[in-house]
Amino acid sequence: MKKILNSKETLIEDMLTGFIAAEGKRVAQSSENSQVLFRKKKKAGKVGIVSGGGSGHEPLFFGLLGKNMVDAVAIGNFFAAPTPGTVLEAIKQADQGAGVICLFGNYAGDVLNFDMGVELAEMEDIKAYNLPITDDVASAGKEEQGERRGIAGDLFVIKEVAAAAAQGRSLEECLRVGESANQRIFSIGVGISPGTNPINGQKNFELADDEIEFGLGIHGEPGIERMKMLDAKSLVQRMVDKLLIELMLFEEKEVVVCINGLGATTHLELYTVNHEVDKLLREKNFNVYDTVVGSICTTQEMAGFSITAQVLTEELKEMYQMDAYSSCYFHKEDY
Amino acid sequence: MKKILNSKETLIEDMLTGFIAAEGKRVAQSSENSQVLFRKKKKAGKVGIVSGGGSGHEPLFFGLLGKNMVDAVAIGNFFAAPTPGTVLEAIKQADQGAGVICLFGNYAGDVLNFDMGVELAEMEDIKAYNLPITDDVASAGKEEQGERRGIAGDLFVIKEVAAAAAQGRSLEECLRVGESANQRIFSIGVGISPGTNPINGQKNFELADDEIEFGLGIHGEPGIERMKMLDAKSLVQRMVDKLLIELMLFEEKEVVVCINGLGATTHLELYTVNHEVDKLLREKNFNVYDTVVGSICTTQEMAGFSITAQVLTEELKEMYQMDAYSSCYFHKEDY
Repeated sequence: MKKILNSKETLIEDMLTGFIAAEGKRVAQSSENSQVLFRKKKKAGKVGIVSGGGSGHEPLFFGLLGKNMVDAVAIGNFFAAPTPGTVLEAIKQADQGAGVICLFGNYAGDVLNFDMGVELAEMEDIKAYNLPITDDVASAGKEEQGERRGIAGDLFVIKEVAAAAAQGRSLEECLRVGESANQRIFSIGVGISPGTNPINGQKNFELADDEIEFGLGIHGEPGIERMKMLDAKSLVQRMVDKLLIELMLFEEKEVVVCINGLGATTHLELYTVNHEVDKLLREKNFNVYDTVVGSICTTQEMAGFSITAQVLTEELKEMYQMDAYSSCYFHKEDY
Repeated sequence: MKKILNSKETLIEDMLTGFIAAEGKRVAQSSENSQVLFRKKKKAGKVGIVSGGGSGHEPLFFGLLGKNMVDAVAIGNFFAAPTPGTVLEAIKQADQGAGVICLFGNYAGDVLNFDMGVELAEMEDIKAYNLPITDDVASAGKEEQGERRGIAGDLFVIKEVAAAAAQGRSLEECLRVGESANQRIFSIGVGISPGTNPINGQKNFELADDEIEFGLGIHGEPGIERMKMLDAKSLVQRMVDKLLIELMLFEEKEVVVCINGLGATTHLELYTVNHEVDKLLREKNFNVYDTVVGSICTTQEMAGFSITAQVLTEELKEMYQMDAYSSCYFHKEDY
């Protein structure tokens, strides 16, 4: 395995120490639990925003700590959910007196541990709710939308709920925004070549040199179909077709788009993909309000990408438009 | 080659169209030359900032178009300098009546074509100067600092000169800031595994499974030494030692740092590297004012990274502190 690390025993700790070394003006590490990082600035009466999940998907989730973004993150070991104790500590660090919402990708281990963390928080009189994000259309059908996995759609749902919290909205209002944001967001991914687990050196899946996996999950979960390599135009057409099935069900015709690289995929490819996505959505009379292109939700040095589209309501658009700053993502409406 | 593209004939065009699809609110493509992109907002009397170079290093250079950043970019074909005509058009798009500075990595082809571009601009009565950036300490010794190649140090030099321009300083003042910024910036890179040329499918270098190349250039130029894999601590020690030779020559003890991934290197590794860099610099009594961690100056899906440190003067610090927004980088002093 060609990775520059110190040891498998210290790799999470080394990474987090290096993150705090870079971001220590704004972000701190909990003295109770080194796998909890939190934003230093607090605002009394604001709903707290927690995110988190297994390590290995960086810059998610700690990269979203910031202004009008995430207040605290609960970090798990490599590809492992954060423990209930870690979730509890993140909730405590995020709590500013108006309750806390935890936003994370919908995976069984995460749901279990976040649920336990929320229960522990209630015992300490902190009102907290979980909102698992379910954007991956390849992982379950429309009738089971709530069972879908969460992938790069995390970014927009978190951004919008965090904006509602920053506006001073109540816990119930923020939750309602989150549910709306999550019901209107759809992603589809493709795996091109595997990433390597830094603990055991194993690749997370295998593919022939001329194959790709359509609908692959971000931990290497099997997709819908293994297929021969396609050019960008043909592949993106198939992917967008899957998203359009969902997008066409809404009256609103305005979307925000994220083209997310899974690690090793170049910007040359990601922007080429965006060229095709943008064309196809406009052909179907969607107005693309904004587009984010980058590698935010990754799986080590895996090659591949996902396309996310979210249908905006007036309210979600207002949330999307709010300025936001974090180490791996910012939004500024005009510059 | 496993890349999702349309054809080698259209790959630059597809990428730029996809970039404009994402950033079209703020950035436009020249109608005279599709390989020139420019920021739409102008400010009469401001010194114009041009950057550019060969494609293949994305998100550089177009990712730096933005507020208090770059006004126009001259884009070359894959790993090829922009033509003199492209440079000229970028200068024309950046010109806001107070002259233009072109900032780019110091490579023979870029220097030649930017020099010709500047001459052509003079014939059209636009005053323009070139400032090739020379931060790669592996590419030439101290006595030939001006011969060094430019790598990730581009980011800070461009940011600081652009800040001087945004402050309304004169062309001569901006150039002086740029020379100071460039003389005080030092980078060292390491190659871990190669990237692939999307035109011909060739890897840009070869290394055994247990080897790395110390000092490798961003096009795969040979480094100082081919060595066996090292752990992060030992490798970073060797790299920082090379930088310290330079940094210790200055009286000032404040630095800004960039840990730049070359493409496929994970944030797990980059933050681990930063942990070691930060520790070593502090041990030598350097105050690390700010740190950027990300993959900004890349070479396709090459694995590896560079460490950049720049010694701040009071003036450079003031330039560094100015807010800046672009698609791949932002700076906000406090958030």
